[in-house]
Formats: sequence, structure tokens, C-alpha cells
Amino acid sequence: MDLTHLLLSLVLIFAGAKILGELAGRIGQPAVLGEMAAGVILGVGVLKVVNPQAEILVLLADVGVIILLFEAGVATDLKELLAAGWRSLAVACIGVVVPFAGGYLIAAALGYNSLVAVFLGAMLTATSVGLTVRVLSDLGKIGTREAKIILGAAVADDIIGLVILAVVRDLGLTGDIQALKIIKIGAMAVGFFAAAIILGGVFAKQLVQLVEKMRVRGALIVAAVAFALLWALAAAVAGSAAIVGAFAAGLALGRTHKAEVIARDLRPVAFIFTPIFFVTVGAAVDVRYLNPFNPANHPVIAVAAILIVVAVAGKLCAGLGAVGKGINAPAVGIGMAPRGEVGLIFADVGRRAGIVSPDLFAAVIIVIAFTTFMTPPLLKFALLERPPRTPLVVWLFEPARKSIQRMLRPRRDRKSNEAHPR
Amino acid sequence: MDLTHLLLSLVLIFAGAKILGELAGRIGQPAVLGEMAAGVILGVGVLKVVNPQAEILVLLADVGVIILLFEAGVATDLKELLAAGWRSLAVACIGVVVPFAGGYLIAAALGYNSLVAVFLGAMLTATSVGLTVRVLSDLGKIGTREAKIILGAAVADDIIGLVILAVVRDLGLTGDIQALKIIKIGAMAVGFFAAAIILGGVFAKQLVQLVEKMRVRGALIVAAVAFALLWALAAAVAGSAAIVGAFAAGLALGRTHKAEVIARDLRPVAFIFTPIFFVTVGAAVDVRYLNPFNPANHPVIAVAAILIVVAVAGKLCAGLGAVGKGINAPAVGIGMAPRGEVGLIFADVGRRAGIVSPDLFAAVIIVIAFTTFMTPPLLKFALLERPPRTPLVVWLFEPARKSIQRMLRPRRDRKSNEAHPR
Repeated sequence: MDLTHLLLSLVLIFAGAKILGELAGRIGQPAVLGEMAAGVILGVGVLKVVNPQAEILVLLADVGVIILLFEAGVATDLKELLAAGWRSLAVACIGVVVPFAGGYLIAAALGYNSLVAVFLGAMLTATSVGLTVRVLSDLGKIGTREAKIILGAAVADDIIGLVILAVVRDLGLTGDIQALKIIKIGAMAVGFFAAAIILGGVFAKQLVQLVEKMRVRGALIVAAVAFALLWALAAAVAGSAAIVGAFAAGLALGRTHKAEVIARDLRPVAFIFTPIFFVTVGAAVDVRYLNPFNPANHPVIAVAAILIVVAVAGKLCAGLGAVGKGINAPAVGIGMAPRGEVGLIFADVGRRAGIVSPDLFAAVIIVIAFTTFMTPPLLKFALLERPPRTPLVVWLFEPARKSIQRMLRPRRDRKSNEAHPR
Repeated sequence: MDLTHLLLSLVLIFAGAKILGELAGRIGQPAVLGEMAAGVILGVGVLKVVNPQAEILVLLADVGVIILLFEAGVATDLKELLAAGWRSLAVACIGVVVPFAGGYLIAAALGYNSLVAVFLGAMLTATSVGLTVRVLSDLGKIGTREAKIILGAAVADDIIGLVILAVVRDLGLTGDIQALKIIKIGAMAVGFFAAAIILGGVFAKQLVQLVEKMRVRGALIVAAVAFALLWALAAAVAGSAAIVGAFAAGLALGRTHKAEVIARDLRPVAFIFTPIFFVTVGAAVDVRYLNPFNPANHPVIAVAAILIVVAVAGKLCAGLGAVGKGINAPAVGIGMAPRGEVGLIFADVGRRAGIVSPDLFAAVIIVIAFTTFMTPPLLKFALLERPPRTPLVVWLFEPARKSIQRMLRPRRDRKSNEAHPR
């Protein structure tokens, strides 16, 4: 891509994101919904002027979601995040086990072989933390308990997702699972996050002290962004996800006394980078598969519809892990539902490994698009219109609540690991 | 380039830029000198960890210099820029004619053929406006009369440079000059700048009015950056230089009542993007050619030394165009001296067309590096230590001053175009 193409893409991305973001706001929806819609219009399905596969846009989108998660980390209180830790872990585990089982069983029932069934189950476990963070931020809810549970769960889900991705890749390549490798990946990812939190706290404090002694202009914001990118890099090298590293870097800098200045200077930078991410996510969606007037699409749409039910129900169940006094558990479940770019990565692995046929791939893309696009309005509804005590929801969650609470009770006893409904 | 490589490059660029920028500041030099020095250390000559030819870094550096010139445009008063117009034009014209003639004659005297001589002359006409803007900004001098003359002259120089580049390209490809094409390029470039200023003013006002009605977060900064990129794109498409378009966009938005808010929000964005430009400029410099202990380098260094004298003297003469009461003319001349990335583009065209031998290319690179690296300290000295009235400078400029003033006098008579010493 040359400079004129890049400039054209960026101008279209920025203009589309803000115009449709504004329109989304006018109809009472989070701005990010408009940004993704702008992507759909500019992308592969309609105008084809923004290519979500262009290397530089992929990389800039990656930097965009890194900065988004870094910003979320700066705004998140580590202590409160850890306090929500067991709930987050419960949400993440249910949100992996139930969609996986559901996807596997549905696929088997539809007559797919077990390799395809494993892949479909795996794809349904994904969560796009970036999208949920952005919706929470759009709604001004990033500081709530629900946000902390979702953030923690999404980080755990990303780590679990890495393990599942490795399993699926191995299955696709060799038809076999290398247990040792899987355990290693899991241990590295978990170990990295713990290390990043602990080391990040030490380094962040020293970095801020160093920057305070510097006189050169822009030292704080450049140092903060460099710190985020370094942690993201370390995460990627350690076999974890870059956004997990960026989030840990944000948590660390958020505990320093410069957190507010960093957050203020980071805002314009995030405004520039994050639309690139959300527009390219939208640009990858090919709406032509959704055309119901094309009979060739009917089986695709039918399979997608079934998978959507499993995908949404599975993550709503994950909300059960968060049930507790004053916690909006359905909102947590909805917050875990968008598959977004994480789902796309899974789908792409499955397609390249030849596990999924083009038709099934199209169905999977519809599931990803649907769960991603439904999240902003549904999460807004769940968080702002306060529905957690409506009869339907009580009916849905109340029976499970007491047993969950019983299971969660030993969480004060730190040695007991049987507390989680894994 | 994959994500981990990009993150590594960016972390090194940011860390190197700020650490060496700080050190430069500590020894009383503009921070940009440290940023370029960081580039030299990280780049092709020494550590080889930042590749200035990697596509994404080239593009991000381009965006960086676009944002830098946009920022300079927002900070520049269009009326004052136009008031300095004739002086700027005189500076630009002298700064093209004298270095070109000098380079041509020296090359002919050294026994090179006329094609090589034209190329060497052309290369010496270049001015890196980005570097001078940054030094003026580092020194807090962006609002001075000298800055306005330099900015105007640099824009004129960029337009003239496009014409010269087209001439050199044609010469390299066909050995012939297509007069019609050259005139067309010149007319397009001049016409674009005039149109960009006029249309930019209209559109900028409407854009700000539109943004004021929008409620979506970040609308102003994203709209401003998109406007700059759009104008840069239009410039590139119209055959002008992208940075000329970005500067015109900045001038237009600088006249709206949101100029201050835009400047404030743009600052962190520029802090992130501009170091990528200056570090990659430094990274392209291969210091191994400067090693005097390698006898193979002696002829290269000798040719470079002669060309440096012509390069610096030629642009100091350009300062004559700015001579006037209370104007620091030597500072203007020094401000026009850095060849920077514009010189690199010329050198690259010459090398690829096979006009210059590898040895001569190395000498040209030394000239570019020297004129670029000498500018920050010299410009600081000229602007802050107030030397314009030292005997040497008086001796240098005083004889020419009266005749220049005589030539400049008819500038109030707008119809007379003979006022410029072309």
C-alpha cells in the first residue's frame, strides 16, 4: 500500500466512524455500533474501499486495540479488579465450557464430524474484550463492578482462548493434540499475566519517576505509550495475547500518581487509533451472505441462526458466574457475548486448516457479526434500563443463584480451588 | 512486518527519541537532534534494529511529517504568512538558484558529466521543512517573523522541488526534458496550494460548524486529523507534495475559533507520530562512510566536504532574500539549509536512475546528513544567541543589504513582479 491509499483509507475510516458513530448516538446506541456499521459499508461487503486485510491497516488496528485496552487498564483499579477475581474466573470458565459444549453438540447433531464440531465449539468460546470495553466506555460505565467482572473475565477468557486456539491449530495440522505443548502455552499465558502485573507495578513507578526528571516535551505520553507497546510485545513473545500485556501495563500505570495526566493525554491518541480497529472489524463482514432472497444463503442462515442461539445462550449462562447482591449478572453475560476479532481469528484458522467448508465459514462469520453487533444495544439496555429484576430474568437466574453463591462462598478460603464451577 | 516487529520498532523509536532528545536538551540542543541521533544508532549504520525502508515505518513516518506540518499550519497566522510572502519567495528562489548553480559548477569542475552535474545541483536545492519546523517548535520560535519567512519559503521550495524532481526523473529516464510536462507539474503544484488555501478556509469553517453540532466523543480531533489527511491526499493526487496539503489544512483550521482546542488535542498525537519521522530519517544515515580511518572513504569524504560548503553557502545566500529591518536573515538561511528527507528522495532518484555511482551517492548522503544535523544547533545559535550583528555577519550581509532592499521596495506595488532577485 502506498501513501495515497493509506491516506484515503484513513480519511474514509475517520469520516465514516464519526458520522455513523454520531448517528448511532442519535438513535440512542453506543458510538462503536456506528463505527462497525461504517466498516460494513466501506468494507468487503459493500463499497470495498477499505481493505481489512491490508497489512498496514491490520497492524494499525492491532495498535488501536492495544491502546484501547491500555486505556481501559489505566482507568481500572487493580484492587477492585482482583476483588472481582473469583467472579471473573467463574464467568470466564462458564463462558468457555457452556458455549464449547453447546457448539460441539449442535454440530454433532447437524451431522458434522468431530473435528468440525470441536472447531465450532472452540469458535463460540471467544470474547472480544475490545468491543465490550468500548461499549462500557461509550456508556460511561467503565468504573462499575460489572465492568470489572467483565474485564477480569475477558482477560481470563483471552488466556483460555490462547490454549484453545493452540488445540484447534494442532488438530487442524496434525489431527492430534499435543498435551505438553498445550499445558506449556496455558502456563506461560497465566504466568505472564501474573508477572506483568507484579513487574509492571515496579517498572511503572520507576518510569514515572524517571519521566518526572525529564524536561523534553511529550515525555510522559510517549513513555506511557512505549510502556504499553513494550508490555504488549512481551505478552506476544511470551505466548500470551498482546492486548493482555497492554491491559497489564495500563493497570500498572493507573496506580501511579500520574494516572490522570496519562489518561488525559491518551484520550486524543485513542480517538485516532481505535476507530481503525472497529471499522476494520466491520469491514471484514460480508453482508451478502445475509441476503435472504438468495436461496443459496438459506442453509447458511439456518445454521447461523442455530449457532447464534447457542452462542448467546452460552455467554448469558456465563453471567451466572457473576450472580451476587447488586450485580447486574445479565449485563455481564451480554458483555461476554461479542466474538468480534477474536472469533474472526478462530474462524480464519479453521478455514485455512481446511476444517470448515466455505458455507460453514460464512455461517460462522454471521454468528460473529451478529453477536458483535447485538452487544452495544443489548449491553446498553441491560446496564441503563435496569432490567435485572424483571420477572423473566429472575425466573432465568434465581434457581441457579443460590447454588452458585454456595459454590462461591469458599472464595475467602484462598487455598480451595474447588470453588469454581469448572 | 508482523505485529511483534512493529511493536519492537516503535518501542525502540519512542525510547531512543525521548532518551536522546532529553540528552540533547541537557547539552542545550533542540530535542530533534537527539531524535535523529537515536535514529543513527538504531538504524542501518550501527545497531540495524530499526529498518527505515520497512513499508509500515515509511508510511507512519509520512503520516508523522504530515501531522507535524499540519500542526505548524494550525499555529501559523495565514495573514502574517502572506505578508512575508515576497520575502519567502525571494528566499526560496535564491535558495534554489544558488545551490543549483554551485552544485552544477563544482561537479563540472570535478570532471563529472553534465547529467551528474544537473543531478548534484538539483539535490542541493532541497529543503527539509519538517526539520526546521520542529527546531523552531523546540525553541519556542514558531510564531516569529523568521519562522513565517522560512515556512513560506519552504512551501515554495517544496513546490519548486517537485518541478526539479520531475526534471531530474525525466533526465534520468530519457536523457531529455519534456518542457510541457514540467510546466504542467509546476502549474498544478502552484495552483493546488492557492486552491487549498482558499477552499480550505471555506471547508474548515463548515467542518467546525458541523463538529460543534456533533455529540460523539472525539469528533473534533478526529475530524481535524481527517481534514489534514484529506488535504495531504488531495495534494499528492494533484501532483503537489502531501506535506504542502497538510500545511494548507492547518492554516485553514488555524483561522477557525476552534484552533486552540485543536492545537491542544493535536499535541499528544503529534508527540506519538513525529518521532517516527525523525528517527527513521536518522536511521537512513550510514555512518560507516564517515570513518576517516578507512582510506576507501577519503575521496568520498573529500567530495562531500566540497559539496557541503556549496550546500551551506548556497542556502545562507538564500537568507539574503529575507534581509530587512529586525529580521534575522542568517537564521532564515540556516533554516533553509537542512536537506533531510527531501534530499534523500532526490538522492534515491539519482541512484535508481543510475546517474550517480555508489561512491557519489555516499558523498551525497554525507552532505544530506551534515546539513540536516548541523541545522538544530546552528539555528538555535542564530536565533537565541543573537549573532546577526556580529562583525562577520555584518561584513557578509551588509554590502548586499541595500541593493536587496532597493529590489524589495516595489513589493507594495503588487503588480510588479520584477521585485524578486530571480
